[in-house]
Amino acid sequence: MTTVTADLDPEEFRRLGHAVVDWIADHRAGLDQLPVQPGVAPGWVRAQLPADLPDDPAPLEDLLDTVDRVVVPASTLWQHPRFFGYFPASASLHSLLGDMLSGALGAQGMLWSTSPAATEVEQVLMDAFAGALGLDPAFTFAGGGGGCIQDSASSGALVALLAALHRAAPGWRESGVTGDERVYVTAETHSSLAKAVRVAGLGAQALRIVDSAPGSLAMDADALAATLKADVAAGLRPVLVCPTVGTTGTGAVDPVRAVAEAAGEHGVWVHVDAAWAGVAALCPEFRHLLDGVELADSLSTNPHKWLLTAFDASLLWVRDGAALPAALSITPEYLRNTASESGAVVDYRDWQVPLGRRFRALKLWAVVHGTGLSGLRSHIRGHVALAAGLADRVRADPAFELAAEPSLGLVCLRVVTGDGPDADDAASREVLARVNASGAAFLTHTVAGGRYVIRVAIGSVTTGPEHVDQLWDRLRAEAAAVAGTG
Amino acid sequence: MTTVTADLDPEEFRRLGHAVVDWIADHRAGLDQLPVQPGVAPGWVRAQLPADLPDDPAPLEDLLDTVDRVVVPASTLWQHPRFFGYFPASASLHSLLGDMLSGALGAQGMLWSTSPAATEVEQVLMDAFAGALGLDPAFTFAGGGGGCIQDSASSGALVALLAALHRAAPGWRESGVTGDERVYVTAETHSSLAKAVRVAGLGAQALRIVDSAPGSLAMDADALAATLKADVAAGLRPVLVCPTVGTTGTGAVDPVRAVAEAAGEHGVWVHVDAAWAGVAALCPEFRHLLDGVELADSLSTNPHKWLLTAFDASLLWVRDGAALPAALSITPEYLRNTASESGAVVDYRDWQVPLGRRFRALKLWAVVHGTGLSGLRSHIRGHVALAAGLADRVRADPAFELAAEPSLGLVCLRVVTGDGPDADDAASREVLARVNASGAAFLTHTVAGGRYVIRVAIGSVTTGPEHVDQLWDRLRAEAAAVAGTG
Repeated sequence: MTTVTADLDPEEFRRLGHAVVDWIADHRAGLDQLPVQPGVAPGWVRAQLPADLPDDPAPLEDLLDTVDRVVVPASTLWQHPRFFGYFPASASLHSLLGDMLSGALGAQGMLWSTSPAATEVEQVLMDAFAGALGLDPAFTFAGGGGGCIQDSASSGALVALLAALHRAAPGWRESGVTGDERVYVTAETHSSLAKAVRVAGLGAQALRIVDSAPGSLAMDADALAATLKADVAAGLRPVLVCPTVGTTGTGAVDPVRAVAEAAGEHGVWVHVDAAWAGVAALCPEFRHLLDGVELADSLSTNPHKWLLTAFDASLLWVRDGAALPAALSITPEYLRNTASESGAVVDYRDWQVPLGRRFRALKLWAVVHGTGLSGLRSHIRGHVALAAGLADRVRADPAFELAAEPSLGLVCLRVVTGDGPDADDAASREVLARVNASGAAFLTHTVAGGRYVIRVAIGSVTTGPEHVDQLWDRLRAEAAAVAGTG
Repeated sequence: MTTVTADLDPEEFRRLGHAVVDWIADHRAGLDQLPVQPGVAPGWVRAQLPADLPDDPAPLEDLLDTVDRVVVPASTLWQHPRFFGYFPASASLHSLLGDMLSGALGAQGMLWSTSPAATEVEQVLMDAFAGALGLDPAFTFAGGGGGCIQDSASSGALVALLAALHRAAPGWRESGVTGDERVYVTAETHSSLAKAVRVAGLGAQALRIVDSAPGSLAMDADALAATLKADVAAGLRPVLVCPTVGTTGTGAVDPVRAVAEAAGEHGVWVHVDAAWAGVAALCPEFRHLLDGVELADSLSTNPHKWLLTAFDASLLWVRDGAALPAALSITPEYLRNTASESGAVVDYRDWQVPLGRRFRALKLWAVVHGTGLSGLRSHIRGHVALAAGLADRVRADPAFELAAEPSLGLVCLRVVTGDGPDADDAASREVLARVNASGAAFLTHTVAGGRYVIRVAIGSVTTGPEHVDQLWDRLRAEAAAVAGTG
């Protein structure tokens, strides 16, 4: 028995691949006509599908039919032009072309030697993006630092924390954590930092929630300085501070420079989480958002959010290019090779938790190749302008108010009933639920300062002015209905 | 400024997507004519590419041209029919079709509510694969357990360890690790376990290397039992034991049943690493490899190795479906939703370290849909038969010997010079280097029992009998050349 090829013949793939490309083109062209969020109940999808794997192969057409009948109707459509939830996940068609090439090569880029191109294209892109974002050259490979593509900002925060633990105590690799380490965030910091602290074995007790500045949702650098000083005096070991540029809740921006200066007094690792907002620094007028990052040890920003690149593609830079391998490298015999031992190459497995890695740089490369920086800047500026326009309409309408000043493409608002905060919160919650149930648009919420907030995150790859107009009309109609005046 | 769409129009995508599909078909059809490993020096790729991002968009043809000129010639070709290194990474063309659909939907499956289909299709597939592999129904959602797709077995081992730490000490989430935890492996266990122990803050001191049984590379369950007993008596806390089904070095199989029985006496979490070999249990004649797994707490196996699925797709099952969320869940306000709070759904973000996740199930679904279980079984059986045939030739040739009995598709061999072990090791090293430098095939090595071993891992998606014949001819020719008789 030596018949081994269960795969498609390349010519079969050519025919079926064209069919899938046509499916994708049709799906994207028709998105506007579909509800953004499905109305399915838990278990509906499972009930539609056979419980067992098939013994025999079936034609692709059957799979596409099931996708049409079951998968699409049960999918929240993140690429829909009226998807305004969470932060965008903009899987542009440009990026899909690059990802297809990545799949074709099927490279496993764990070591330089297991695919030199996968490693070096990523290095080139990381250095080039550092330049385009205006980062300190210290974050480039040429400057002694370097960058890599992580699957997510969560994983980037975790490896930054591990590098910080190693730097703070070189015995960490052998002895583990001690329980004295402390990590500093605010109540608005992304939950991935709390998760990283838990994963790293520190426990929630290691997490210090630093106060925000009065009247603000941004970290109070003076409060940070005082907390650091008190912790050091108490014999504790501050390990990492995470300022955020563009919080998930409301897009608040922590004062990176002041935070880094306070942290610097104690040699604490500064990891800047700019997962959503950082890419805006491609535009000179938004570069101030990264002010002070030149004092940080690491920085994360996600092209898979607002920069047109299909998940997963989170960029992580570190000032010390040796920091992640020092913390993470373990080399069994079967991974030894002359290129690694020469010291002349980067082995990206040592920059991440998993061993294996895809050639993710191709999808990011395809985006910037297909759009140019000029296209990326128009994309960002266009969404920021749409957010500013929506904010103006909120300000002008007595039935609504801004819950915070707009931050780039994020507008936070609530319904105003005239009956006080509790009534406003209840009405806001009801309006959001009605908008989502309609399928006409998709929104998510947060709570800030104890108040319910409707978030409108503008950034889907297909969103244009008419879609924000449609959202605004729908918000007004639902608010009027809830108020009994609609 | 409201021109926002930097992306391709769907009709442009249709044209360009067809061109990329054609590129892929041509690339795969021509693989056999290319060297498996490139001859490029470190820095060559970087030197070919512009240092800065382009301001203006450029046509896809330019990108494909650069891929042809720079990327392919600098890529180790993991899909090549004469790639026999590491373990295979079989990115079948079937799986690429599924991955294209995943990119099209661009779903972010962190919560059930953020894409019900992404979650439930994965649940259905995990339950169905559990059945096809003959796993205890306790590992299915229907049986109170459940499974999910991780990016890699490394990440699967890490989250299994975190769940084990939480189960061993419910205070772990608050207080972190104590330094008394111990994790049990062998010298042949994959390095990802040592990495997980480091990441989790335990330090290398927590890692116990259990002896192998005499004359074997498999864990000695009696030695494990004795070590566990001694550690408990010393006040230490055994947390996790990792038996391997198919080690990376030589494909050795630890005695899962005996290991699990020894661990069970102390309530220790048993995580079975069957990353490479586990998928063979789709064939009834190899199901014995998973004997005793019904006593384990978790199991990992990777379709992205030998089961035709493009990286990343590592399957992780747990016996207790609540274990991973209990260890990993953290819920900020912006992720709260009624479906999650109903308790009726699975939120896969709580089964992994990252928050975001792709709709990975589509590529695995496309594979099993396009091949059927019958096709997957032929694929595995075909490679195992090729390995058996190669092993027979090694046994029959006095210039070679088996370094271990073949394990499924893995053949471990070395050159025999007649001048003793050191000379054999040196000759084996030289033969491997010459084969790889020729570009005709790609092999990697390990060291087992202190001896150098050439590994031949048969499993590339395109490998057939003629490719193993070509490898064998090349091995013999290089061995003769090294011996001075060629």
